[in-house]
Amino acid sequence: MKARVTVTLKNGVLDPQGKAIVGALGSLGFDGVGSVRQGKVFDVELDTKDRAKAEESLKAMCEKLLANTVIEDYSVAID
Amino acid sequence: MKARVTVTLKNGVLDPQGKAIVGALGSLGFDGVGSVRQGKVFDVELDTKDRAKAEESLKAMCEKLLANTVIEDYSVAID
Repeated sequence: MKARVTVTLKNGVLDPQGKAIVGALGSLGFDGVGSVRQGKVFDVELDTKDRAKAEESLKAMCEKLLANTVIEDYSVAID
Repeated sequence: MKARVTVTLKNGVLDPQGKAIVGALGSLGFDGVGSVRQGKVFDVELDTKDRAKAEESLKAMCEKLLANTVIEDYSVAID
């Protein structure tokens, strides 16, 4: 079973990397970019075929390893 | 207009970071993880309201800055 976990910064958390990307886009001639915020995706392949179990397991992985829940949100999408 | 750009490694490109995550998950007790591949997301806010123009612009940003098209694929989703 394939799943995609997306980890993004919470609202209000500063994202200097995103700001740098806005600057770089501007110097490449891309105007009209309001903001950029960078996050991570993890494409995970699980051996289980139990959808509910997979979701539970993925959420636990996020809580323990994939996301820093103090500053990051995560979402899980199972194919 | 908000959009999400997702950049992932192409098939066949080695992902040592993903391998390390599989190892870390294993040592945390998560068995049954076949593979993990890590990518990036960019949440971009654009000033334009023209959907087609936004998509074109985002694709150009990927080609020029956000993705390394030799080893990475990208996809653009506009809200």
